[in-house]
Amino acid sequence: MARGHRGPDGGAWELPPLVDHHCHGVVREDLDDDAFASYLTESDAPAAPGTSFFDTQLGFAVRRWCPPLLDLEPHCPPGAYTARRRELGAHEAGRRLLGADGIGEYLVDTGPTADLTGPGELAAAGGARAHEVVRLERLAERAADAAGSAGGFLAALEGAVERAAGTAVGFKSVAAYRYGLDLEPGPPAASEVRAAAGRWLAARDSGDRVADPVLLRHLLWSAARTGLPLQLHTGFGDPDLRLDRCDPLLLTGFVRAVRPTGCRLVLLHGYPYHRHAAYLAHAYPHVYADVGLSVNHTGARAAEVLAEALELAPFGKLLFSTDAYGLPELYVTGAALFREALVRLLEEWTGGGAWSREDAARVAALVCAGNARRVYGLGG
Amino acid sequence: MARGHRGPDGGAWELPPLVDHHCHGVVREDLDDDAFASYLTESDAPAAPGTSFFDTQLGFAVRRWCPPLLDLEPHCPPGAYTARRRELGAHEAGRRLLGADGIGEYLVDTGPTADLTGPGELAAAGGARAHEVVRLERLAERAADAAGSAGGFLAALEGAVERAAGTAVGFKSVAAYRYGLDLEPGPPAASEVRAAAGRWLAARDSGDRVADPVLLRHLLWSAARTGLPLQLHTGFGDPDLRLDRCDPLLLTGFVRAVRPTGCRLVLLHGYPYHRHAAYLAHAYPHVYADVGLSVNHTGARAAEVLAEALELAPFGKLLFSTDAYGLPELYVTGAALFREALVRLLEEWTGGGAWSREDAARVAALVCAGNARRVYGLGG
Amino acid sequence: MARGHRGPDGGAWELPPLVDHHCHGVVREDLDDDAFASYLTESDAPAAPGTSFFDTQLGFAVRRWCPPLLDLEPHCPPGAYTARRRELGAHEAGRRLLGADGIGEYLVDTGPTADLTGPGELAAAGGARAHEVVRLERLAERAADAAGSAGGFLAALEGAVERAAGTAVGFKSVAAYRYGLDLEPGPPAASEVRAAAGRWLAARDSGDRVADPVLLRHLLWSAARTGLPLQLHTGFGDPDLRLDRCDPLLLTGFVRAVRPTGCRLVLLHGYPYHRHAAYLAHAYPHVYADVGLSVNHTGARAAEVLAEALELAPFGKLLFSTDAYGLPELYVTGAALFREALVRLLEEWTGGGAWSREDAARVAALVCAGNARRVYGLGG
Repeated sequence: MARGHRGPDGGAWELPPLVDHHCHGVVREDLDDDAFASYLTESDAPAAPGTSFFDTQLGFAVRRWCPPLLDLEPHCPPGAYTARRRELGAHEAGRRLLGADGIGEYLVDTGPTADLTGPGELAAAGGARAHEVVRLERLAERAADAAGSAGGFLAALEGAVERAAGTAVGFKSVAAYRYGLDLEPGPPAASEVRAAAGRWLAARDSGDRVADPVLLRHLLWSAARTGLPLQLHTGFGDPDLRLDRCDPLLLTGFVRAVRPTGCRLVLLHGYPYHRHAAYLAHAYPHVYADVGLSVNHTGARAAEVLAEALELAPFGKLLFSTDAYGLPELYVTGAALFREALVRLLEEWTGGGAWSREDAARVAALVCAGNARRVYGLGG
Repeated sequence: MARGHRGPDGGAWELPPLVDHHCHGVVREDLDDDAFASYLTESDAPAAPGTSFFDTQLGFAVRRWCPPLLDLEPHCPPGAYTARRRELGAHEAGRRLLGADGIGEYLVDTGPTADLTGPGELAAAGGARAHEVVRLERLAERAADAAGSAGGFLAALEGAVERAAGTAVGFKSVAAYRYGLDLEPGPPAASEVRAAAGRWLAARDSGDRVADPVLLRHLLWSAARTGLPLQLHTGFGDPDLRLDRCDPLLLTGFVRAVRPTGCRLVLLHGYPYHRHAAYLAHAYPHVYADVGLSVNHTGARAAEVLAEALELAPFGKLLFSTDAYGLPELYVTGAALFREALVRLLEEWTGGGAWSREDAARVAALVCAGNARRVYGLGG
Repeated sequence: MARGHRGPDGGAWELPPLVDHHCHGVVREDLDDDAFASYLTESDAPAAPGTSFFDTQLGFAVRRWCPPLLDLEPHCPPGAYTARRRELGAHEAGRRLLGADGIGEYLVDTGPTADLTGPGELAAAGGARAHEVVRLERLAERAADAAGSAGGFLAALEGAVERAAGTAVGFKSVAAYRYGLDLEPGPPAASEVRAAAGRWLAARDSGDRVADPVLLRHLLWSAARTGLPLQLHTGFGDPDLRLDRCDPLLLTGFVRAVRPTGCRLVLLHGYPYHRHAAYLAHAYPHVYADVGLSVNHTGARAAEVLAEALELAPFGKLLFSTDAYGLPELYVTGAALFREALVRLLEEWTGGGAWSREDAARVAALVCAGNARRVYGLGG
């Protein structure tokens, strides 16, 4: 298991191994330059003529932190890096990168249909522990692929949620991508759910995704009843979503409606609405937040984004994640940028006397690991 | 009356005694630890398991600034602070805290139904002057408690607004909490108001709050016609409100409609939409803004929030307030954080040559006191 | 042509002459104090009693950068500056100011009806090159002034767009001001356009502006089909617009619908939604952004606003503009504030090792000039 960090990015601060409470697996095969670059953006298209996805905060962060782990100089040219990566092979490069990310525990959203490494493989490569987070929409799509009727589908889904609750540490919803967060707040009536399921199955080709708002709400409420934490994508992501329909405040009605169930909600990413997510974590006892994906994509600006989240979010409510997907590099950058951002804030706030060093160290341990351990019941 | 500040938080800058243009009274009795902590948050529930409301920017700010005033070390443990506070007693602790807040004048919103100190008591404890700001919804609720008919209620309300205009320095609206700011902009017709009043009185139990949008608009327009400044809650607050319905830009129609009356609007708090409030203060001559409540709750980040407001807000349009409620500590922190934030910005902007020191001192005097004196006609 | 900058504001960085991809002309006559001040704000009214438009970030920026160019001390009193300006005369003052702005190329929106200098006159005064950007709504209004029928109007408009595409480097839309950005995304049907044109012409007095959403969409799609870049006002501006209807995310549907045409969209200003504009530039290959007007109006805070845009915007997608209008001073401040902001970020990000100096210099050249040259095909 990864050791704590003290050094170039941790400075004088002893930070515990990180718990990455939301990430995905990595690709196993070697990648050509264009395929590699496509993982550096949320865009779904080639870069505009005359531009490169390496010319982004994330591209610069990868070139800063990763080349030394593959025996190259920081900020070496992109082509030199990707060539060296292929020379070593994806497996060896992944082993080196994941072994150095300082993450002690991965909570892996196994929802993507792409062929990525699962929790076990990720844990082995990273010398860490791993747990599964189950994506609700994927459960529904698998149940639909096998179902003969609406009733059969709903029964199979119920069983799948129940089984997942026995092995996973949490659920994840991508309703933001499939519809938006402007959903009706309450649980749909059973008759509505059955009708929506019938319509969906009748129109569906195998592999089609669930996007019906009634079914998406049914999934949220099915998860809420299990007592496991429920992660919700909020804020920016790829062009499948409409960003203005992913403002976490659109969830306010759901937040209120689900409160009596005791279900804890973890709002992911949030950017550029991360102050809104932090407000919800402030105002409602069962709401938590992270800045996940934003850390990697804002790079040199990650400290500012983290600071904005730490304005209203109680310090016991903010979690760390990388949202890394596909490239082992994104664990390295997500973790390094987060540690560096956190340390910068600790230095600033203790330097001016606003925080005591003792409190600062305690808060750092909470956001790096303690909050996630408490929310997901990880022990350790 | 409090003296100006020059020292640890004022640095080389001579700041005038602050005019706190929006605050509330304080509780008179001793508080146990949980009751004390409940004033550190906008949440309406106990802290989530394993977390504490002291672990927030505001909690850390209280522990920084207040213990020395009660003979303790900064950042002493929360329990030590609350114990010492009870040892001294609420009265003595309040006297020490309010006497050191550097606020020379309090404009007290007397709207809360809780048993808090009024303007006179606050002024005496703080060695300062105090004025009343009358909350419109409270006037309506008191009139309703005594009224026998819609007509009687509306006449009583009209009289109450008129009397208040003779003694208060401004009005305050919490329409944001009761309905949201997405109100129809114009004044409701008399027949609409009478019908809404009738419906409300018929359904009402004594003590029920006014939440009907027609009545809320009637209150706004009743205040606008008096010529006194009208304060409007905007932005975050407790979970009674839906944050996305408190964006000050939702008031744009009202801002335009009320402009010919000459009524000056003061947009309170605004966070996380404080840049929106600053825009309205920039674009419309009769609009003013503060960052009030945000200063206390963002603590170590208050300078950034203030800086964001000072992007578009003309320097003659931004006011200071603490929005302190219940705890005398919140005057101390609200004032100290504001002075520190302001001085940090003055140092930065004069240090780089962007502002002259003479201009900076003049702007500081405006936002600390001068703007409020002009808007509320305080003299002095 | 202006030389690159290396010195007080460029520091150790050699920045190329700027390409100002969105600006307007300047007034030719001398201005009294009130008229001068009216150009320092987006407000349409005199300053509130007791306040001055000079007491703003832009006012302070003008007083910092411009007096030395007219032989005065930085931060001299406003009245001394305006008096000296009149003493020199508008022509000589303009020559001095524009000659020192460090802008090598102006792309001039010739849409305002006010009597401002055109591209040629601006280029001559500034010792620079200039190109025209044609405002769509102005084309429509000119065509309407001359038209006898809806059919004649639409044919004239089509011809005008075609002719403009032969000489201009881009089009500009102010649909944000005339209606808002919450337009239907697709092109309106020909029958809809004809009906809307008929209604508008029938109701129209000469000089009336186009505000019909169907006609505004027709203009956007007419421009999109020419293959020239299309600039769209987004974010704050004068009180003609409703800011919450100018969030660039409201364009998401149009962005998607227009994508197959290959039309490049350049989102102007964006503030306070500039992170939203940057997201669109990140997610969609044909979208570009600037922070234009925001740089002048946020003054000492321009580095922060620029940094926020550089979180998600790919570095090949962000452009420079002043949006200067009326006063030659606004070119000086827009350019100086931008260079200073950019250099501050380069210093910070290279100083911490996040960016290499080589990359930083390359990115600086892109945002100062290279991106605009590529997007508008300027050569050079």
